[in-house]
Amino acid sequence: MPRLRELGVEIGIIPTGPNNTICDVSGVKVGHVTLDDGPVKTGVTAVVPGDGNLFRDKLVAACHVINGFGKSAGLVQIEELGTIETPIVLTNTFSVGDCLRGLVQYMLGQDDGIGRSSGTVNPVVCECNDGYLNDIRALKVIPSHVAQAIESASTDFEMGDVGAGKGMSCYQLKGGIGSASRVVDLDGQIYTVGVLVLSNFGETRDLLVDGVKAGRAIEAVLSQEALKEQGSIIAVVATDAPMTSRQLKRLCKRASVGIVRTGAYIGHGSGEITLAFSTANRVSHDGKGPLSLNVVSDNWSNRFFRAVVEATEESVLDSMICAKTVEGRDGHVRRSLVEFLDIVLKEGNR
Amino acid sequence: MPRLRELGVEIGIIPTGPNNTICDVSGVKVGHVTLDDGPVKTGVTAVVPGDGNLFRDKLVAACHVINGFGKSAGLVQIEELGTIETPIVLTNTFSVGDCLRGLVQYMLGQDDGIGRSSGTVNPVVCECNDGYLNDIRALKVIPSHVAQAIESASTDFEMGDVGAGKGMSCYQLKGGIGSASRVVDLDGQIYTVGVLVLSNFGETRDLLVDGVKAGRAIEAVLSQEALKEQGSIIAVVATDAPMTSRQLKRLCKRASVGIVRTGAYIGHGSGEITLAFSTANRVSHDGKGPLSLNVVSDNWSNRFFRAVVEATEESVLDSMICAKTVEGRDGHVRRSLVEFLDIVLKEGNR
Amino acid sequence: MPRLRELGVEIGIIPTGPNNTICDVSGVKVGHVTLDDGPVKTGVTAVVPGDGNLFRDKLVAACHVINGFGKSAGLVQIEELGTIETPIVLTNTFSVGDCLRGLVQYMLGQDDGIGRSSGTVNPVVCECNDGYLNDIRALKVIPSHVAQAIESASTDFEMGDVGAGKGMSCYQLKGGIGSASRVVDLDGQIYTVGVLVLSNFGETRDLLVDGVKAGRAIEAVLSQEALKEQGSIIAVVATDAPMTSRQLKRLCKRASVGIVRTGAYIGHGSGEITLAFSTANRVSHDGKGPLSLNVVSDNWSNRFFRAVVEATEESVLDSMICAKTVEGRDGHVRRSLVEFLDIVLKEGNR
Amino acid sequence: MPRLRELGVEIGIIPTGPNNTICDVSGVKVGHVTLDDGPVKTGVTAVVPGDGNLFRDKLVAACHVINGFGKSAGLVQIEELGTIETPIVLTNTFSVGDCLRGLVQYMLGQDDGIGRSSGTVNPVVCECNDGYLNDIRALKVIPSHVAQAIESASTDFEMGDVGAGKGMSCYQLKGGIGSASRVVDLDGQIYTVGVLVLSNFGETRDLLVDGVKAGRAIEAVLSQEALKEQGSIIAVVATDAPMTSRQLKRLCKRASVGIVRTGAYIGHGSGEITLAFSTANRVSHDGKGPLSLNVVSDNWSNRFFRAVVEATEESVLDSMICAKTVEGRDGHVRRSLVEFLDIVLKEGNR
Repeated sequence: MPRLRELGVEIGIIPTGPNNTICDVSGVKVGHVTLDDGPVKTGVTAVVPGDGNLFRDKLVAACHVINGFGKSAGLVQIEELGTIETPIVLTNTFSVGDCLRGLVQYMLGQDDGIGRSSGTVNPVVCECNDGYLNDIRALKVIPSHVAQAIESASTDFEMGDVGAGKGMSCYQLKGGIGSASRVVDLDGQIYTVGVLVLSNFGETRDLLVDGVKAGRAIEAVLSQEALKEQGSIIAVVATDAPMTSRQLKRLCKRASVGIVRTGAYIGHGSGEITLAFSTANRVSHDGKGPLSLNVVSDNWSNRFFRAVVEATEESVLDSMICAKTVEGRDGHVRRSLVEFLDIVLKEGNR
Repeated sequence: MPRLRELGVEIGIIPTGPNNTICDVSGVKVGHVTLDDGPVKTGVTAVVPGDGNLFRDKLVAACHVINGFGKSAGLVQIEELGTIETPIVLTNTFSVGDCLRGLVQYMLGQDDGIGRSSGTVNPVVCECNDGYLNDIRALKVIPSHVAQAIESASTDFEMGDVGAGKGMSCYQLKGGIGSASRVVDLDGQIYTVGVLVLSNFGETRDLLVDGVKAGRAIEAVLSQEALKEQGSIIAVVATDAPMTSRQLKRLCKRASVGIVRTGAYIGHGSGEITLAFSTANRVSHDGKGPLSLNVVSDNWSNRFFRAVVEATEESVLDSMICAKTVEGRDGHVRRSLVEFLDIVLKEGNR
Repeated sequence: MPRLRELGVEIGIIPTGPNNTICDVSGVKVGHVTLDDGPVKTGVTAVVPGDGNLFRDKLVAACHVINGFGKSAGLVQIEELGTIETPIVLTNTFSVGDCLRGLVQYMLGQDDGIGRSSGTVNPVVCECNDGYLNDIRALKVIPSHVAQAIESASTDFEMGDVGAGKGMSCYQLKGGIGSASRVVDLDGQIYTVGVLVLSNFGETRDLLVDGVKAGRAIEAVLSQEALKEQGSIIAVVATDAPMTSRQLKRLCKRASVGIVRTGAYIGHGSGEITLAFSTANRVSHDGKGPLSLNVVSDNWSNRFFRAVVEATEESVLDSMICAKTVEGRDGHVRRSLVEFLDIVLKEGNR
Repeated sequence: MPRLRELGVEIGIIPTGPNNTICDVSGVKVGHVTLDDGPVKTGVTAVVPGDGNLFRDKLVAACHVINGFGKSAGLVQIEELGTIETPIVLTNTFSVGDCLRGLVQYMLGQDDGIGRSSGTVNPVVCECNDGYLNDIRALKVIPSHVAQAIESASTDFEMGDVGAGKGMSCYQLKGGIGSASRVVDLDGQIYTVGVLVLSNFGETRDLLVDGVKAGRAIEAVLSQEALKEQGSIIAVVATDAPMTSRQLKRLCKRASVGIVRTGAYIGHGSGEITLAFSTANRVSHDGKGPLSLNVVSDNWSNRFFRAVVEATEESVLDSMICAKTVEGRDGHVRRSLVEFLDIVLKEGNR
């Protein structure tokens, strides 16, 4: 599938990285396991934030709950300690448990000391509810899918209706996995900000594509089953800029701006949760020496904020543009935004 | 095992309920599944907050993270929506995933609409790390233990080294499940506050029993293996007083006072998390009519705060007094506080 | 000055109240004191949430900090107790102190018991930095301006460059006081949501008017002095719908959506703070009887969220449309958006 | 007045700094203005965290609200940006406004750019209600007291009924200003933690002195006027250890443990607020270069936590021991804990 930018719609004003994905942040990889079998439309997506044993050498991280109608796990410890120590796993709401078990097992396989000499590990699993298309009650994700997703991770990954995104709906069209990146220039010092989203929120009538009210026109031609907005969005922000967890949390908050720019209003049932991590420093699990951080000045904040906003907005739109139309359980269908390209592209004002 | 109060040590000044447990709050039941097989010393404890379909008729609730070095799941949504809609399940750190799956399955069995017509359900699973005694890497808790614990719940439950408390350590002695209650009299209007803890924190030298520095004396006679404090405590507060989630959150915060009164100082590795719920009102899942709440005035707050403090302090101490000495994996032993009753009771100043 | 709606631009889809201001919520009044003397361009605005002694009969309230680069006072207690007990006073950043004193004095005058028999009172004063136009270092606001603003409050108040808004800048044009309302219909039960903003944020190039990228065109014709975005916005949300502080806090969070819809991205220096209160219940200061709350079901949340979003967006835009061009200290000028009506209105897509 | 330690009561096990005050952290100074005139028993205390222009070279900082029944100002920005840029001023509840004005004026005098070229400054003023002894309605603190307190600051300062502590009550005895310090040894790397409190909380019966239930015995001999507990405590934590704001916030939370160890239970009306700062790094206001932080490893957290706990507990007790008996407005008297030294010291178990 072409991406939005290839169709001529450029979101924002900041240059993208070479792949325009979260993997433009060096070290970040993404892997999927997609389950697509009749009414089973679901899966697992793993964001691997760096090489090596993440438990032993953690990354500085933060999270933020925009709207807490969600069941993600692992946030409490990120909030307290400001680090992540596992890949970030995305899946459907009812599979958080299986993915937690799978991620624990994966980490136990990585490190003999966990749960013995070294305390436990904090697995991070986030979710959206794909129950409109997917037979979510069937609980088809199993723990081993986690290792499979992690081990298949690469810098070149699919977007749209893949992995955890297989069954997701966005603006009552097909959503799923989207990603984008921006390059931030601090007077010669170059950093990259990447975003990956699992999109599953919104009502058609509200959809904006680069600010254009495409949703109203699409709604008019769409025989859309009435559906309460029960969605969610998970956003993962990565950067190679050195930041403290306080600074990363501020990035998380700007993901909401990118989401709002696509038209939604943080609905009641939309569990909106963002994680952010920096690849610039590793925090040793056992180390007692001081941690040297050369963090960027807050005076540069706006450059990063704009980058997060633009990359999140584009990630959401690409999660839709890159997704094919999917028919799931009980004849439920979510159509691809690509079917409405005439509406999306014909607007004169871009 | 006798309880602390039966040994003559009375914590605080407020009268207890008839059983001096969380089940003095009408409708609350507790059930355990205990796994005790060689190096496997672990289990599941379920706090069932009320009868009927909790998903359809939720309880007002709150949570509070005192120290977030923990992996409990389900808190994000409690924070946002101020309700619980499942029993509260306690287990070991690595079994959160299995218990989430088990709790989802249990709830799916309770209600055909979940994940179909009604969105998903927010399972609440809290944990401590029992890895000192338990072979936690063996992942021996399985999803069906959750239904088993819920279905076995009664108002007459065991304390100490049972259920999720089987492998827990407290003040480097044996910890586990403890509970207590207090009766609050608002000028004639009687309410009950009950607390249940899963205790797994602290260093012997810090232990206070009713304010007496018993820990120093115990440490002196104890050949205690050096161990980094890596513990946690989960506290569940129940009341039949009608309260908003804001008020319940304030109760949660006072659990920390009760914990501190037993000597600990909220150590770095101690994941201290509290949940609270009120049985006084049910919140309909689908209802659109106004919710009538006759909440207690904040001007009575201190009566409830003292009740939570006393019941939490006593719960922690009873979790120790009611636990037998346990030998777990690799010859690791946690001795019962009962072995040190001479020290605990001989102090002249009570 | 005409309002945006009178110029033919209607924000959103929900009907407004009769005045399309926060005073459509019965009992709410707004008063201003404007200081306009050479380089002094500042003032005080008071939102009076209801009649009578607010200290004795408080209102349920909440607050939310979207971005905390701000100096507002009084939020800590609102967060804890979920009530307001004074009018809400808006002013410039350096006059928070004088307004606190003035508001304390005003409340002491209202009630002999405060600070004697009844503890203290929590004055709420919020601020933005009007230092671009105003000689803010001159500290020209004095405590008595607070009583003057409160006593002059009415349901018919001016918007734009008045009161605390006299010296404020929005999108590097003239900002200030704006307000709007929406009527929410819950299947026959009618409630009103009103918003008032003190706007002082944003860069011209980002301005959206009803989604149209007017800012870019305005920037092109505007000889705009380079200025770091150092602004802020305070939003006050009022409703007659009965809500708990948890529910009101969720309204607060949706104000950020309305702000983002005008183009901004929650910049680093933009202190964005929202307060919300409900006029439906009074909380007695001394009362010990139960508080009867018939709160609206969360299942109606989205109707209120959309109302807050729309009213906030319109409030920001009206704060600009209703403001005249102002020349302040050192020849600094902020032009009225009205000067660019050709750009704002000529766009074909409304 | 002698200090508790000079009377033979040593709190905790960690060594103190040379002065056993917050000024053992190099660069920290404390100054008072005391108002003592008939029914006027109040004042201002300034904690000056370091030399030079704090606005231009800020300190990393954090705050935490234990119980938000309080009116302190400046916390919102500390939470967001993780820095302080002014001295920390303590006063009575109704004088926050005057002290804010005074602190703004002081900072304007320090720096011509504030409010002109550089945005505004965030003044931090914390408070307790001294209205039992002090005629708080008289509003006798004036803005110039702030500069006076700051300019008189030294490393050798009085404790007890001085400055902001003049009219404060603690455990219904005389409270006020207390301070203590601890020296933390990280395997040879030495850091200092200092605490200063403004104590104004608690009921006599709950008072513990080094864990001993002195309060009950004092209450028995004390003809104490019934008084609702309406107090508060402000704690300021200083350290020369390099920490991020996340780490400093965790220190703040442990101040509550020290407070609880003196017997209180975080009562409803007790506004408990803690600030912490590190003197190890300066954050340039204008700088855009990276900030080099060599922060201490979280693996050392417990050493710092214990230090904060012990220093806070001792600070509270010294605030009482160092205070003389004071008779204030309307014949109200708060007796010094020194009058009860027989009770405090006679207990056999120390």
